[in-house]
Amino acid sequence: MKVPALSESDINQQLDELPGWSLREGKLYREFRLGNFNRAWGFMSRVALLAEQMDHHPEWSNVYGTVEIYLTTHDAGGISTRDFELAGKINALN
Amino acid sequence: MKVPALSESDINQQLDELPGWSLREGKLYREFRLGNFNRAWGFMSRVALLAEQMDHHPEWSNVYGTVEIYLTTHDAGGISTRDFELAGKINALN
Repeated sequence: MKVPALSESDINQQLDELPGWSLREGKLYREFRLGNFNRAWGFMSRVALLAEQMDHHPEWSNVYGTVEIYLTTHDAGGISTRDFELAGKINALN
Repeated sequence: MKVPALSESDINQQLDELPGWSLREGKLYREFRLGNFNRAWGFMSRVALLAEQMDHHPEWSNVYGTVEIYLTTHDAGGISTRDFELAGKINALN
């Protein structure tokens, strides 16, 4: 199911209601600091299940207790409502 | 337990016996292409358990089916035998 990319003004408006996230490299971005690898991995595992459930996957990296997440919608060529939906669900986990 | 950084010649010698890995940004590096997120996550889960078991953790990123792994030993200020040990165990998983 193809979804359209959001306009810049839509993105900025929705970012206002999404604590911790910002725009970086044209993607939704947030860094999470979990304190150690065990906790970071636990968090990533929960995000992985969300991602599979939504069939929408993050671009992410992990160094010890830190997890950096980038969200974009390749099919849309930009940020879509699916990114905001996943970001909101990730925030609800934390 | 502090381990020393390996010399450049030791690193190059050990890299010759470690298929798929190279030096990148002064760290051991390998990219794995698993084909989809489910497989990539399964692979990462196995690496995560290895990492916890060794108390030696990767710097890594994942985009859909691709996993990029960087190994270095911060305590040593470079690449140590622990990185080669983890890299070897990761290769054995694949």
